[in-house]
Amino acid sequence: MTATEPVDPELQKLYDDFETEHLNPLWTQIGDLMPMVPTSKAVPFVWQWSTLYPLAQRAGDLVPVGRGGERRAIALANPGLGGVPYVTPTLWAAIQYLGPKETAPEHRHSQNAFRFVVEGEGVWTVVNGDPVAMRRGDFLLTPGWNFHGHHNETDRPMAWIDGLDIPFVHYTDTGFFEFGSDGLTDEGTPDISRSERLWVHPGLRPLVGLDRKTSSPIACYRWEHTDRALNEQLALEDEGYAATPEPGHAAVRYTNPTTGGDVMPTIRAEFHRLRAGAHTRARRDVGSVVFQVFDGEGRFHLADKSHDVTKGDMIVVPSWVEWSLETDKGVDLFAFSDAPIVERLHFNRTIISEGA
Amino acid sequence: MTATEPVDPELQKLYDDFETEHLNPLWTQIGDLMPMVPTSKAVPFVWQWSTLYPLAQRAGDLVPVGRGGERRAIALANPGLGGVPYVTPTLWAAIQYLGPKETAPEHRHSQNAFRFVVEGEGVWTVVNGDPVAMRRGDFLLTPGWNFHGHHNETDRPMAWIDGLDIPFVHYTDTGFFEFGSDGLTDEGTPDISRSERLWVHPGLRPLVGLDRKTSSPIACYRWEHTDRALNEQLALEDEGYAATPEPGHAAVRYTNPTTGGDVMPTIRAEFHRLRAGAHTRARRDVGSVVFQVFDGEGRFHLADKSHDVTKGDMIVVPSWVEWSLETDKGVDLFAFSDAPIVERLHFNRTIISEGA
Amino acid sequence: MTATEPVDPELQKLYDDFETEHLNPLWTQIGDLMPMVPTSKAVPFVWQWSTLYPLAQRAGDLVPVGRGGERRAIALANPGLGGVPYVTPTLWAAIQYLGPKETAPEHRHSQNAFRFVVEGEGVWTVVNGDPVAMRRGDFLLTPGWNFHGHHNETDRPMAWIDGLDIPFVHYTDTGFFEFGSDGLTDEGTPDISRSERLWVHPGLRPLVGLDRKTSSPIACYRWEHTDRALNEQLALEDEGYAATPEPGHAAVRYTNPTTGGDVMPTIRAEFHRLRAGAHTRARRDVGSVVFQVFDGEGRFHLADKSHDVTKGDMIVVPSWVEWSLETDKGVDLFAFSDAPIVERLHFNRTIISEGA
Amino acid sequence: MTATEPVDPELQKLYDDFETEHLNPLWTQIGDLMPMVPTSKAVPFVWQWSTLYPLAQRAGDLVPVGRGGERRAIALANPGLGGVPYVTPTLWAAIQYLGPKETAPEHRHSQNAFRFVVEGEGVWTVVNGDPVAMRRGDFLLTPGWNFHGHHNETDRPMAWIDGLDIPFVHYTDTGFFEFGSDGLTDEGTPDISRSERLWVHPGLRPLVGLDRKTSSPIACYRWEHTDRALNEQLALEDEGYAATPEPGHAAVRYTNPTTGGDVMPTIRAEFHRLRAGAHTRARRDVGSVVFQVFDGEGRFHLADKSHDVTKGDMIVVPSWVEWSLETDKGVDLFAFSDAPIVERLHFNRTIISEGA
Repeated sequence: MTATEPVDPELQKLYDDFETEHLNPLWTQIGDLMPMVPTSKAVPFVWQWSTLYPLAQRAGDLVPVGRGGERRAIALANPGLGGVPYVTPTLWAAIQYLGPKETAPEHRHSQNAFRFVVEGEGVWTVVNGDPVAMRRGDFLLTPGWNFHGHHNETDRPMAWIDGLDIPFVHYTDTGFFEFGSDGLTDEGTPDISRSERLWVHPGLRPLVGLDRKTSSPIACYRWEHTDRALNEQLALEDEGYAATPEPGHAAVRYTNPTTGGDVMPTIRAEFHRLRAGAHTRARRDVGSVVFQVFDGEGRFHLADKSHDVTKGDMIVVPSWVEWSLETDKGVDLFAFSDAPIVERLHFNRTIISEGA
Repeated sequence: MTATEPVDPELQKLYDDFETEHLNPLWTQIGDLMPMVPTSKAVPFVWQWSTLYPLAQRAGDLVPVGRGGERRAIALANPGLGGVPYVTPTLWAAIQYLGPKETAPEHRHSQNAFRFVVEGEGVWTVVNGDPVAMRRGDFLLTPGWNFHGHHNETDRPMAWIDGLDIPFVHYTDTGFFEFGSDGLTDEGTPDISRSERLWVHPGLRPLVGLDRKTSSPIACYRWEHTDRALNEQLALEDEGYAATPEPGHAAVRYTNPTTGGDVMPTIRAEFHRLRAGAHTRARRDVGSVVFQVFDGEGRFHLADKSHDVTKGDMIVVPSWVEWSLETDKGVDLFAFSDAPIVERLHFNRTIISEGA
Repeated sequence: MTATEPVDPELQKLYDDFETEHLNPLWTQIGDLMPMVPTSKAVPFVWQWSTLYPLAQRAGDLVPVGRGGERRAIALANPGLGGVPYVTPTLWAAIQYLGPKETAPEHRHSQNAFRFVVEGEGVWTVVNGDPVAMRRGDFLLTPGWNFHGHHNETDRPMAWIDGLDIPFVHYTDTGFFEFGSDGLTDEGTPDISRSERLWVHPGLRPLVGLDRKTSSPIACYRWEHTDRALNEQLALEDEGYAATPEPGHAAVRYTNPTTGGDVMPTIRAEFHRLRAGAHTRARRDVGSVVFQVFDGEGRFHLADKSHDVTKGDMIVVPSWVEWSLETDKGVDLFAFSDAPIVERLHFNRTIISEGA
Repeated sequence: MTATEPVDPELQKLYDDFETEHLNPLWTQIGDLMPMVPTSKAVPFVWQWSTLYPLAQRAGDLVPVGRGGERRAIALANPGLGGVPYVTPTLWAAIQYLGPKETAPEHRHSQNAFRFVVEGEGVWTVVNGDPVAMRRGDFLLTPGWNFHGHHNETDRPMAWIDGLDIPFVHYTDTGFFEFGSDGLTDEGTPDISRSERLWVHPGLRPLVGLDRKTSSPIACYRWEHTDRALNEQLALEDEGYAATPEPGHAAVRYTNPTTGGDVMPTIRAEFHRLRAGAHTRARRDVGSVVFQVFDGEGRFHLADKSHDVTKGDMIVVPSWVEWSLETDKGVDLFAFSDAPIVERLHFNRTIISEGA
């Protein structure tokens, strides 16, 4: 028995009958179905902010935002995935653009979503009636089945990135969607959200929120906290203490304070900072990751190619593709991945190369 | 902004530029990407054992089993999924056939697998060197990354069903595969496996196995235990005690004794027995289920169609499709599903109809 | 500053003022309060069945059983604990005796309880209305806040041991108690309980019982299962497979099938079998253990003394006392301990000696 | 059978024989052993800071601190517990006093410890070599088996309260103790500790600390965070949002950021703030609690007595004693309890009165 094509007429008849009866033999395709290592159709790829932002601007001029289309979001379509708007098989990444004084109407869905702001400010996301200001460096959550809409209070447009598990939810047939208010349920523009006022106190939980929550109750992780955490790691490293995952590389994971685990059931988010001159160890992981350069510049090595990246550029690393990053002048990156899916189902494996 | 097709030339130019840059707008396709309720491409369908078994026999005559093709397994290809060998987007179901004295060589893979035996005996599955006899009604596990092969010790062929998470693992790029021994590492033919001798003692754990295991250490769940459990539920119901999920419907879930949870991280397995005259309440669940009739006969109502089913027939219910089952003379069914994926990632929802 | 007694008058005045104000200095007593290793007031000790049973018989003749006294239970009072009826600081162990046709009335309490039967039969324990037959070798549960009573259906007396967390609950002020029916709520005498009929099917859970339960839903762990599990471990050892915690020593832990963990939140129960000629490695554990010899005979080494033990004898090993057991002809032992308290609060430590 | 004393000579002989054989009948003492509700020997009580502090000062003058006695700590001895230095059966609470330039040498123990600072500053606790500044309002952890010592860098004395599980560990025979450096392993006096620099960033975890830790890795919970969290809760309440457990009563729990649970396995810590005019609902809980007034003043109702309390006063509420608190001018309180013991072993119950 081999995987080569059948020629014998009786065998051909058998295969035809399989097809008629909606059957399909394993032996002719096992190599594709069950490869030796993960062999993604998705490819490593880089999108430049200098391309993304002008296209989003043009969409802002040409395409109105409103009920039906819901969002002016332009998705990264992995070149290996045949044109679908998926950055990896499981993840969605898009640039969303909101013009001056525009409003994106409220809705909710099973899909878990976040936003990360690489530049600008002036938009509020309203999550279940709680207005959340968006500013450079902030990481905002709208976990599954929370109503949310956005409104731009300024005379300038604003763009940010959205990350969701749309492909995974679509593939697994697990999604529900519901329209909400056409406007916003709270037009306030507070500096920080009520969620943050209740929850963003390190190591402290309000007595009204002691249950274990599926997703983080923190609506926004502010840049000043992320920045300070990374600075402290590098300072501790300078002082000779173990604080960084590898030399010159500081990193934090955004977490759900009610569990200590990932912010949402399907999406992990982290922020990484490399000192000038640092070079990460090459690694492979099961699961896919998307990076956005937040500041500085670096060079990504993805499988056998290298890519210079700078502020706003977005990089995708499919499952089991080897990657490393080096930087001359230092670089800051936001990262998100499907690691919670992989880990909760016990498919996680990692290989980290020994040398520098 | 609507989801209709663009005509404006500037807009067309924008869409062309999106394509060039590997981008894809949300607003033209949100309805397909994010439907109001799960809308699977997979369809409800029934395969009859009277079709499956003869085709497997013919494959037994025409296709040798051995290294490369690995298994004489013929997969159920959901008619809605375009010809891929997937019974649902996440699950694989196949009939596997092993001729007299044949051996299927050892291998291991990340994919989680089980076998369920609707008829016959005489084959031993060897799991990490432990020979496990297969007999009618038995449910056997080969969780991810355990070496396994099969050998038929008799002069008669034997067929059974295989269930795996091949589609899910393929889709999420999480699979590894490794060849093992071409023969079997233990050619013994014990009545029960060493795994069972160590683990199949109700409520008892060996002191050598007190850690929490990802998958069940029980290699085989024997029919006599399943049958007895179901009989007791119905007898208790007769005596007036709450023992069945609904009148006339007994059911057990196969579990991992080290956690009380599902047998493997991605696959749930259950066995259901309906008394003569019983009719289950109609229900919808997020996630997909496959049934095989083990004994008796019944009528499945799947969405708006009904299907008479009998021993060996296999029925697939995609996510959120309404189904119920009734039986005049009583029916026994094995069932497996992707519920652990759905539940661990918190996408589970169920609607059970009120009336009979 | 030392722990010696004060003599200075000013210091004496200070100590007097402490006492007046309900204060107490650490420095004079830290050595007792915080010893270098656990230093239990409880001592290792052995009670012989040949003493226990006749005393229980005499109590049967002299003391009626009924509401108020509730149970004809005679507790093992550790000689180190000053006369309180505690076998260790946390655990209660007693012999309970029920004369012909006697009934012990129903009640419930926060305290977790079990019974283990070293000889006899003919009594039914009724747990929340479910009659549970008691027979030699059986291990029965009445977890906290379950109503329970006992009745002897025969013309012969029956005695067994009770184990509870009475001392721990008393010490921590966590106990509630409530009287129930003066008679029994179900006078049936079935061979096995409804709980067993629903739950005692290895690896299987009823669909009506899929939640995570605080304590095991199995009312009785029958001797035939325990015996078979131990026999299989020794047979597997003979065949060359890893099945026993150490050579010649088979052991199982009784578990809650809904979690895989201990049967009750405060009490661990195990059964151990040593082959003729076996000798366990000496060990020390944090937490206290009580053994009862079920069959055969052996010699316990407790700290620096040795004790010959035979059927029915009860042995207590306080926290951190070194112990081992050897046997010429083979020995079977039931064991229970407060290990779940120690482990859930992360105080567990163990030292196992290297040599034989 | 009743609990009255025996008079019959044969019965007296039986009881004498019980005593000789280290046995003890249940029926004569069940009411004390297993009361209807928790009936603690500990009593509700109040210690005034105006008494505690001067006595600590006198101890500072008369008793040196150093190896052997280890700490100048004066424990609250619950008047119901017969003179042992236990504030409740499970908890230890003490005032610790360190004179100008004094050092308390390093040691470690299984017992979990914390300090709370009601006034003063100038002492550093060194935990596993990490110096942690102590200032008014700070809550500091030294979980089990972490080396720790203290040194006062100023010319003024400093006092604070220590809370430990010494009684519980002593009672359960679970404690180990080890001497460390006679001096301090790091004499630095940083404003915040390295632990805080790594861990005190809300919702963020360092990539070097992703495992689940038994106790919180945060060495100190600073007053400014606690104060801000409480202020926000009351402000949100003013704005009409659900943020407080009851009207006018803000409260936070200190948590382990790696789990979202309590800071240590045996001790819960919280901080409560009542607005002027607030009155908490009366409640009873299984488990014991100790409060210290941090600021303001109030009136505690403990069972049937009332106690006016002010800054520094310490209040103990034994298990199942009803209590409430009212305040005219507002009051801030630190609280700690043995709730993790009670909850992990599933003994928790609470009754909260309906009315105001």
